[in-house]
Amino acid sequence: MQSPASTISLPPSDSRERARKLVLALQDEICSGLENLDEEGLFKEETWKRPEGGGGRSRVMSEGRIFEQAGVNFSEVQGEQLPPSILNQRPEAKGHPWFATGTSMVLHPRNPYLPTVHLNYRYFEAGPVWWFGGGADLTPFYPYLEDARHFHRTHKEACDQVSPELHKVFKPWCDEYFYLKHRNETRGIGGIFYDYQDGSGVLYKGQDQQGNAANISKEIGLCPKTWEELFALAKSCGQAFLPAYVPIIQKRKDLQYGERERQFQLYRRGRYVEFNLVWDRGTIFGLQTNGRTESILMSLPPLARWEYGFKASTESREALLTELFTKPQDWLNDDALEEQCQPYEAIG
Amino acid sequence: MQSPASTISLPPSDSRERARKLVLALQDEICSGLENLDEEGLFKEETWKRPEGGGGRSRVMSEGRIFEQAGVNFSEVQGEQLPPSILNQRPEAKGHPWFATGTSMVLHPRNPYLPTVHLNYRYFEAGPVWWFGGGADLTPFYPYLEDARHFHRTHKEACDQVSPELHKVFKPWCDEYFYLKHRNETRGIGGIFYDYQDGSGVLYKGQDQQGNAANISKEIGLCPKTWEELFALAKSCGQAFLPAYVPIIQKRKDLQYGERERQFQLYRRGRYVEFNLVWDRGTIFGLQTNGRTESILMSLPPLARWEYGFKASTESREALLTELFTKPQDWLNDDALEEQCQPYEAIG
Repeated sequence: MQSPASTISLPPSDSRERARKLVLALQDEICSGLENLDEEGLFKEETWKRPEGGGGRSRVMSEGRIFEQAGVNFSEVQGEQLPPSILNQRPEAKGHPWFATGTSMVLHPRNPYLPTVHLNYRYFEAGPVWWFGGGADLTPFYPYLEDARHFHRTHKEACDQVSPELHKVFKPWCDEYFYLKHRNETRGIGGIFYDYQDGSGVLYKGQDQQGNAANISKEIGLCPKTWEELFALAKSCGQAFLPAYVPIIQKRKDLQYGERERQFQLYRRGRYVEFNLVWDRGTIFGLQTNGRTESILMSLPPLARWEYGFKASTESREALLTELFTKPQDWLNDDALEEQCQPYEAIG
Repeated sequence: MQSPASTISLPPSDSRERARKLVLALQDEICSGLENLDEEGLFKEETWKRPEGGGGRSRVMSEGRIFEQAGVNFSEVQGEQLPPSILNQRPEAKGHPWFATGTSMVLHPRNPYLPTVHLNYRYFEAGPVWWFGGGADLTPFYPYLEDARHFHRTHKEACDQVSPELHKVFKPWCDEYFYLKHRNETRGIGGIFYDYQDGSGVLYKGQDQQGNAANISKEIGLCPKTWEELFALAKSCGQAFLPAYVPIIQKRKDLQYGERERQFQLYRRGRYVEFNLVWDRGTIFGLQTNGRTESILMSLPPLARWEYGFKASTESREALLTELFTKPQDWLNDDALEEQCQPYEAIG
């Protein structure tokens, strides 16, 4: 029997350096774009070292004009043995030292009409195996169909630059990953997500829009087959972030809101906390590998609330958000969404 | 080889009914005591059924005079197979249907000088095994040594009624359980905690005050050996809750506070969220067994905040809380604590 590792090609000799430079450049580009967008807030930077090897560069903007809090991390870490949560997925890495570099960010705007957003791109090496992972997903508090479509369209175009076969896999993968099982909700309207991409093909079994396993992409070879293609994918998707997000902010940033909208935003931010602490593999990986807690938990919102038994009033925008925008949807192709959303968008 | 199960005595024939009545009575007594204390807030009750069997009675007080939120749950649930998190601890239960009943509560006062508190007492049966577990622990936001001592003294007296050997085991067990590994902090000043008490003796290896394993109690037979003694223990400790907590509230409830104290309280409540969602076995059990999410997450605070890199200013009460009151301490016997706390208590 052929082990998966034997089908993985060797990475280029300067793979770590190129991956590091890519994610560092992404961090720089995006921070700079966000400072321009905010016009007031500036990122404060802290660099840190990890006792077990490696370190990072954490940047935080607090109390900006647009961003109540924005955290953008870079890290490059090494260790002797990957934690069980990853070895379960990549048993070939067992007993080997590992290397990982990546950038991740979560932006929490103050105005409830502006969506929270998350991005992460990362690269791993461990003994005979290497892989890329990452993605970006949007979490609105108020439902705007055109924003969801813009975010998805921009990421689809970025995937298409590498292969037109990718988006139809990475889009449902995102819905599946950013899912709160205990709430039966997605975290938001999704985006793209992929993991363990090592050039040997996609083994992911996707789900259809009803959440049933659909084997969307089982074929070996459908996905990027080389290190270079996967590197290009991370670059293309990473660079799509600002064009996917900034126009949404520009369009909504001056909308007036009141206490009702603020309270709903804080309530929904509670779901963000629940996902990150209960289900997110990235957070669990960080805490398991003695990561830098303050940097890992930069993803948590500056303020969040919980309310027992809260229900949005019927036929409200809050109800539309809860019913339609926290379920997997075919945002780009489902025309029926327009009819469902239109009556509410006029309010906003 | 003798299996652990064979050393466990049979429970009385009416064990489930007696355990249910005990925790229902605790819920009633405590809710009634808390309404008297609050003088304004009233509990709203919801009863619910679980599709897989059993149900519960959830009571919530919101926006009371003293309590910003107080949640007091009762549940009685059954299932075909316990989840892996419990089967790891009780492999004898594998393949057997199970029964569990318990009461749990978390109270979040509004005034930052009033501590948050948690209580849980529960009883399990699964095939050949049964066990009791539970405890209560206090999480102050401002450091008052006399409050910590009162809470611990009252629970020690409740344990002593069953056996003078118990408190020295259950106190460090509580410090160990309510521990945030990723912060290197206890959740608060502790109290008592015990689990898997089936009459076969304590197998718990405690830790000393420095957090080193200390084998405080390895001897079989040190702990209650019969179902009746363990039932009496749950009753004695459960009934100690109001006397342990209410006098602290009465003493501090009229203290004036400002924005600084409120912000510190909200920040520390973030730690409460982190513990409950990342480390708490009770929460994980509930989410794994398709529990009622709204009832399980009633423990989360009504409002919480996170701030990157926050540090309390030196020699402040906030620093004393962080440095002394989130580390395991021998509250009842360590006289040196007085010198450390006294300069700050005068401020309060």
